[in-house]
Amino acid sequence: MANNASSSISPSNYTESATKQTEALKSLFDPHSIDPHLLQKIEYDALVWSSLHGLLVGDRASEKSGRIPGVGLIHAPISLLPTPFPESHWKQACEVAPIFNELVDRVSLDSEFLQESLSRTKKVDAFTARLLDIHAKILDMGKKEEIRLGLHRSDYMLDEQTNSLLQIELNTISSSFPGLSCLVSELHRSLLHQYKQHLALDPLQIPQNNAVGLFAETLYRAWAEYNNPRAVVVIVVQTEERNMYDQHWISTLNFTYEVRSIRRTLGEIDAQGEILPDGSLIVDGEAVAVVYFRAGYAPTDYPSESEWSARLLIEQSCAVKCPSISYHLAGTKKIQQELAKPNQLERFLENKDDIAKVRKCFAGLWSLDDSSIIKDAIENPGLYVMKPQREGGGNNIYGEDVRLSLQRMEKEGMEENAAAYILMQRIFPVISRAVLMRDGISHKEHVISELGIYGTYLRNKTDVIVNDNSGYLMRTKVSSSNEGGVAAGFAVLDSVYLV
Amino acid sequence: MANNASSSISPSNYTESATKQTEALKSLFDPHSIDPHLLQKIEYDALVWSSLHGLLVGDRASEKSGRIPGVGLIHAPISLLPTPFPESHWKQACEVAPIFNELVDRVSLDSEFLQESLSRTKKVDAFTARLLDIHAKILDMGKKEEIRLGLHRSDYMLDEQTNSLLQIELNTISSSFPGLSCLVSELHRSLLHQYKQHLALDPLQIPQNNAVGLFAETLYRAWAEYNNPRAVVVIVVQTEERNMYDQHWISTLNFTYEVRSIRRTLGEIDAQGEILPDGSLIVDGEAVAVVYFRAGYAPTDYPSESEWSARLLIEQSCAVKCPSISYHLAGTKKIQQELAKPNQLERFLENKDDIAKVRKCFAGLWSLDDSSIIKDAIENPGLYVMKPQREGGGNNIYGEDVRLSLQRMEKEGMEENAAAYILMQRIFPVISRAVLMRDGISHKEHVISELGIYGTYLRNKTDVIVNDNSGYLMRTKVSSSNEGGVAAGFAVLDSVYLV
Repeated sequence: MANNASSSISPSNYTESATKQTEALKSLFDPHSIDPHLLQKIEYDALVWSSLHGLLVGDRASEKSGRIPGVGLIHAPISLLPTPFPESHWKQACEVAPIFNELVDRVSLDSEFLQESLSRTKKVDAFTARLLDIHAKILDMGKKEEIRLGLHRSDYMLDEQTNSLLQIELNTISSSFPGLSCLVSELHRSLLHQYKQHLALDPLQIPQNNAVGLFAETLYRAWAEYNNPRAVVVIVVQTEERNMYDQHWISTLNFTYEVRSIRRTLGEIDAQGEILPDGSLIVDGEAVAVVYFRAGYAPTDYPSESEWSARLLIEQSCAVKCPSISYHLAGTKKIQQELAKPNQLERFLENKDDIAKVRKCFAGLWSLDDSSIIKDAIENPGLYVMKPQREGGGNNIYGEDVRLSLQRMEKEGMEENAAAYILMQRIFPVISRAVLMRDGISHKEHVISELGIYGTYLRNKTDVIVNDNSGYLMRTKVSSSNEGGVAAGFAVLDSVYLV
Repeated sequence: MANNASSSISPSNYTESATKQTEALKSLFDPHSIDPHLLQKIEYDALVWSSLHGLLVGDRASEKSGRIPGVGLIHAPISLLPTPFPESHWKQACEVAPIFNELVDRVSLDSEFLQESLSRTKKVDAFTARLLDIHAKILDMGKKEEIRLGLHRSDYMLDEQTNSLLQIELNTISSSFPGLSCLVSELHRSLLHQYKQHLALDPLQIPQNNAVGLFAETLYRAWAEYNNPRAVVVIVVQTEERNMYDQHWISTLNFTYEVRSIRRTLGEIDAQGEILPDGSLIVDGEAVAVVYFRAGYAPTDYPSESEWSARLLIEQSCAVKCPSISYHLAGTKKIQQELAKPNQLERFLENKDDIAKVRKCFAGLWSLDDSSIIKDAIENPGLYVMKPQREGGGNNIYGEDVRLSLQRMEKEGMEENAAAYILMQRIFPVISRAVLMRDGISHKEHVISELGIYGTYLRNKTDVIVNDNSGYLMRTKVSSSNEGGVAAGFAVLDSVYLV
């Protein structure tokens, strides 16, 4: 079951031109060689800027900071300066965003494809199973989403060996950091401007980033499409949320559209929610136009049946969901892997150029029922990553552990384990130098970066109303961590410097 | 030694019209009667707004928050909604600001007046004595300030009994909160706008507040007047400063004028500072155009000889000082009291209207060598406040303690104690209802408010370049505290709602 790449990965893909480009990137500027006195000034100014401009999170050290705004605040972890990124790959990622938006929408409409592709995942992952149950119930009701809203983020890494932009994952639920990512771009532009005599970097090479504005605008347009002037936007949140300011930036902008929003946990929605006979959702006495999920993406967001019951209630209502259960499922890793198989994209997209553009971003993705790939992975474990099918992150398997895991699975019977993991081409990202700031302290590190491109999509029964690429998120982390994807907890916010 | 008022204070000053106006103020809106559910929403939004817009201070609970920006942040203590204030008194306070600016400048030039008026204070207050020593040394040098910069704030309370606006003090050094006060006005305007359907308050009744912009602009113009494009502004700071973001707001704006600023403690200036033969001040290798004091106003800011040595060094240089030692002395309580004596204002101001406007703001102020006042104060201690001559605040004496203190002094010999205190007419401020927010928690309180009007002044040898009223600060505190002046540590930031 091969993907777009050849049946296995060979180091011969390594190209000379890629090396040259990488070297050019590295030599462009080296934040580690900045004069320490100057560096200290830039660090101080970055911390001040972050404090004055709301580039903040709740401090983990503060008990109340995840529940009460305005207390226990700390600057968001950031890269002090932007990270160089090739303009050609940047453009590629932006260009493909609306195609991914369209793809998600098309896939979401193919209920059979979703149920079938995920049927094996269902057996090993209780979380996906519950999502599929809701999906099936909605299918049984014969209910269709007429207004469909997607606020996505497609994440990429730049593979140094193949000089290609490879998709890590496509987030269709709760895409984080549209607010703070804009602020980091602004911070970096401001620092480059302020220190222009010392750093030979052009602030205009940091692309404009208006993710938060476009998210807010698209939420507003979905709200307007729902067409009840008194209805609110419900933001589904976790009980404790230290990244609340990222979310509040969107609510603040929503207010400029005179749209009111309320924040509720799934538990609260279960307690306060009901569906009227006409299908409209009422939460705490308020008619709901749009439900915007900033929680509900991970198993831990459903500690009891109450949360599942709220999710079902929302899905059964005629409120606009961001995302619907189908959009949510369309963003799972398993679907990503299915779409990477030959002739699958063709089921959903007509335009050959579009198909080629999407395919170009796919890393090698294989299920564990391909014995030739398993053989290759046991022989060359360093070239693969094993990713759990389970959503909600973590626990990728790298290096020697890939070999050990596969050998264990072969002993135990591959059949049992095959559904729990997929194999992915291991990406060897460009390593650069950076100064990372956390808790007011700076660290000179060798880092890798992951680029996320936001996409906004809105359509009704007849027309596509919005389909755009909508700003970006750069996340950077110490390169000694595993390279298969940036774990959100340990990555800092960053911006792009086009080269 | 009587002041503008009659020789003592009589409750007969209480006027009927004042009562009516006060009642109108109180009934305008009562934040205590807002529906609790709605109140909770407004509180939440106020905390979010403060976090996103830099209305922040360092949290006392965080050890590092006074030294490192970006860590241990917490929303500034605020009043949830603006406090009603009569438009006529507001206009009066704004109108008199440029006259006070001019008055400070004229008084600062009369060295004999300063030295003589403070000669007795010098004996009881080591701090004022040290300031006077520096002043005398500069006089001996024959040195004159050609560029004179004042960033003042004149603080008032509204006396309910006389329906008059009375000056509490005139700050000529380190006037705080030009940054955060603007943000509170903006916050309140934003809340009134957002909740216009629930609160019948017009956001436009909160006056525009651009204190921070005008402070930054005036600092810039002083810098430009100094005329060395490579010179910096030195902000003199305390070693620990939890109100640093108020200061950073000014620096941030300075940067828009492409003026660089550096922050130094007096100790650091002592270690890193020198005066070149041409009189210019160098700190840490940088030529200094302007020294802006946000420390140095209290005895605790001079823990060793090193700080005094820095203060002298600055004063001996040709850098623009904000304030010079003469401006600093012109703002002392003793000078305020001297100016309140008959025919003193006439020494410094020509225009009779101006003199009348200034005098109108003076509360009764008497030194302790007036035996008839002491007699009256012992009989009616509730009508007086005893204020220490010492600068740097605190320890006003109220109520029965006034009687006890005066009787003790009479026993010990009034001569000894007379210089240490002045007597001031006790102000009975309007009490209103407010919701105060601190540490993320709201408190319904009966409060009193103090209005500060910022004034900016800049002149060179020949011309007055700037002389304006420049925004405002409203501070509000629980009314059970002593009313003689709002202690900064326990007051919250507020804004004015004109009625």
